[in-house]
Amino acid sequence: MSATDKPAATGARTFGDRARDHLWLHFADHSGYADTEIPVIVRGDGPYVYDEHGKRYFDGLAGLFAVQVGHGRDELAEAVARQTKQLAYFPLWSHAHPAAVELAERVAAQAPGDLNRVFFTGGGGEAVESAWKLAKQYFKKTGKPNKHKVISRSLAYHGTSQGALSITGIPGAKQDFEPLVPSAIKVPNTNFYRAPVHADDYEAFGAWAADEIARAIEREGPETVAAVFLEPLQNTGGCFPPPPGYWQRVREICTEHDVLLVSDEVICAFGRLGHDFGANRYGYQPDIITVAKGLTSGYAPLGAMIADERLMEPFLVDGSSFTHGSTYGGHPVACAVAMANLDLIESEDLYGRVQANEANFRATLEKLLDLPIVGDVRGAGYFYGIELVKDKATKATFTAEDAERVLRGHVSPALFEAGLYCRADDRAEPVIQLAPPLISTQEHFDEVEQILRAVLTEAQAEL
Amino acid sequence: MSATDKPAATGARTFGDRARDHLWLHFADHSGYADTEIPVIVRGDGPYVYDEHGKRYFDGLAGLFAVQVGHGRDELAEAVARQTKQLAYFPLWSHAHPAAVELAERVAAQAPGDLNRVFFTGGGGEAVESAWKLAKQYFKKTGKPNKHKVISRSLAYHGTSQGALSITGIPGAKQDFEPLVPSAIKVPNTNFYRAPVHADDYEAFGAWAADEIARAIEREGPETVAAVFLEPLQNTGGCFPPPPGYWQRVREICTEHDVLLVSDEVICAFGRLGHDFGANRYGYQPDIITVAKGLTSGYAPLGAMIADERLMEPFLVDGSSFTHGSTYGGHPVACAVAMANLDLIESEDLYGRVQANEANFRATLEKLLDLPIVGDVRGAGYFYGIELVKDKATKATFTAEDAERVLRGHVSPALFEAGLYCRADDRAEPVIQLAPPLISTQEHFDEVEQILRAVLTEAQAEL
Repeated sequence: MSATDKPAATGARTFGDRARDHLWLHFADHSGYADTEIPVIVRGDGPYVYDEHGKRYFDGLAGLFAVQVGHGRDELAEAVARQTKQLAYFPLWSHAHPAAVELAERVAAQAPGDLNRVFFTGGGGEAVESAWKLAKQYFKKTGKPNKHKVISRSLAYHGTSQGALSITGIPGAKQDFEPLVPSAIKVPNTNFYRAPVHADDYEAFGAWAADEIARAIEREGPETVAAVFLEPLQNTGGCFPPPPGYWQRVREICTEHDVLLVSDEVICAFGRLGHDFGANRYGYQPDIITVAKGLTSGYAPLGAMIADERLMEPFLVDGSSFTHGSTYGGHPVACAVAMANLDLIESEDLYGRVQANEANFRATLEKLLDLPIVGDVRGAGYFYGIELVKDKATKATFTAEDAERVLRGHVSPALFEAGLYCRADDRAEPVIQLAPPLISTQEHFDEVEQILRAVLTEAQAEL
Repeated sequence: MSATDKPAATGARTFGDRARDHLWLHFADHSGYADTEIPVIVRGDGPYVYDEHGKRYFDGLAGLFAVQVGHGRDELAEAVARQTKQLAYFPLWSHAHPAAVELAERVAAQAPGDLNRVFFTGGGGEAVESAWKLAKQYFKKTGKPNKHKVISRSLAYHGTSQGALSITGIPGAKQDFEPLVPSAIKVPNTNFYRAPVHADDYEAFGAWAADEIARAIEREGPETVAAVFLEPLQNTGGCFPPPPGYWQRVREICTEHDVLLVSDEVICAFGRLGHDFGANRYGYQPDIITVAKGLTSGYAPLGAMIADERLMEPFLVDGSSFTHGSTYGGHPVACAVAMANLDLIESEDLYGRVQANEANFRATLEKLLDLPIVGDVRGAGYFYGIELVKDKATKATFTAEDAERVLRGHVSPALFEAGLYCRADDRAEPVIQLAPPLISTQEHFDEVEQILRAVLTEAQAEL
């Protein structure tokens, strides 16, 4: 009997109780569950998920920035079942399968410029690993063997395998795992709310932030730098959009120094910003785009590295190969579900719907700015961060004790209790992260705003 | 319309032709496809797969050491469809879902000793990354912060993300990606066919190989070494089994130096060796086991790190957490298909069948030893390597030119042409790797032997 056929509880024990015995959760403080059940999600329907006690939650994070088309879509279940019956597994090691061929064609057709070559992975972190490895091997094959370093931004999350983790800019996620891959350099991000310079001039701030990349390349020596990894709009820290002109200046800098520009769109691609790719929203041309999450709406694990045609050329000559791969990169079922997912996104015009609704989403969230605890609301598309502050005038942030007591102790459980699944994150300044399914509409925005208003109003009384 | 609904060819072009335009294969020499189609596998049935032209191949590699129960199993397609409808995606980040809870219980119940804690991943490489990261953070939390180095064996494959790749011992898979994570030290493997010492005494050779691990730990300083990563039976190089007493001595060494023993069973677990775990076959107690592949028979991407109870203890205290995770680790559909896969393995007694048949599999392959080109046949369970030599008496191996012309130029394509999918590998000495689905029987062993006999007979004429 499969898990899903069973009633929520087996005998006297719930899944949430049993979960504490053997299951080691990800990024979780298990001590918080010493005396309480672990929340167990048992089903999903549209933008909602349900726990084993039947309680409903609005999925304000699309699972984990993934479930673009919403939960419980029969079309995707059918695609999964069909491909599993046909060919459930075969590796892409020197062989292909039809779903990968078709999906590669489709993704290449959508990607900007000459990004025509698609290397499938099992997820986003693996796509980032693949991009760094490609950058290293590409330059070794083209007479610039010293180009191996990478540059990324403070606080940016790019994955947790040790290559991707080296690129990640969150000190707390890395410190216990050092030493990591050397030669991963960090530059400032585009947090304008806390801009250290040009705090009164967004464009000048953006130019400064972009030029920090140039200065890092020059400090390291351009002949040693292989790639720059940036999200179109940075997630961690709470949604830092690119200032006007930022991306264009970064593109110039990378071209000038022969450094590959990697647009890490694991979150941003496939509609999160109302476009197929963030690069297309902001109008820049990367050399590589990394994707995952929205590609399958999370229904199956899949990622991809989409590379410029010229990056494959040195690997097309006799006896040459990109000496990289993985068992599950381009899994047939995942590729088939990606095709069905992209069909749904197109037939329901989800990019168009995000574009049409995003101003209303922003306006609804901005209502919260009347609360003293809400310092900033920022983002784009269906992707927002709400920064919490102790004092709006001075932008004073939470102490460690505030974060523990108010954010983790009160806000997180209270939001969940109130029926909103999202993330209260304090890896930097405290932020509420929101990234709902792309099928969400005004009624959902209002639901989110009302829950946040109630919980944050209580929270500020505790500060 | 999904890929699998389409006829093999769309209009004038086959998938194998179209695949060359946009799909970047894994570990592939694309120049080999400049003038020929890429082979495209479209469906599977039992131990066979079929290409888009209808040609049948015996799957001598179980996809990639994964498809234990064979292809096209309706029970698994049903499990996949059911879970996808119910809850297609939710992360394990501080929340759980029923399939993960049940699978963790089941895996923990099977794992030896106190390996009671299951951290799910998206595949094998991620399980290895997780194990190294756990080892690093565990020792930081228990007062031995300098313990971060890892030891593994020459030629061993442990994955391709840059942490796992650092543990991998295949120079050719690493050289273009250096620098990698520092502090990954290599020791000799248990290749007795080419033993540099004790070539006439298998047990003494094993004791020497184990003691090489002790010597490496002592050279590095035990207070700096966190873990030893070993496969129960090493794949790359062509199936090196552990000599008698090897594992027991390794366990002693690790205990003596407070170094975690990680049994990397991504290939060996779930029946490849006729047992649930390789550790149970060879009778040793690891601190961590890493698994993937056979856990789902490849039907969905999933891996796990199974850790000793004591390794989680420092993470159960207030405010502590293993600061690691991934979007797709423990995907609900993958966990559900793993449950159904383990059901099938049990109801069909596949471990018992491998145990009953393995002597016949070996005997059938050993018939090939009458060919001058076959130097050695080694392995266990349904997991064998056949080493090819230029001169059986001297064990002289192929030159680089032989490998290119005879192995890659002749043997690989000829085996595939003759209807056998397997791997002719020359990352070290040339070997044919065989790891058929666990449902295979004598008729399949005979089919494999006959194809190998014909192709290798031709090949030796070309040497």
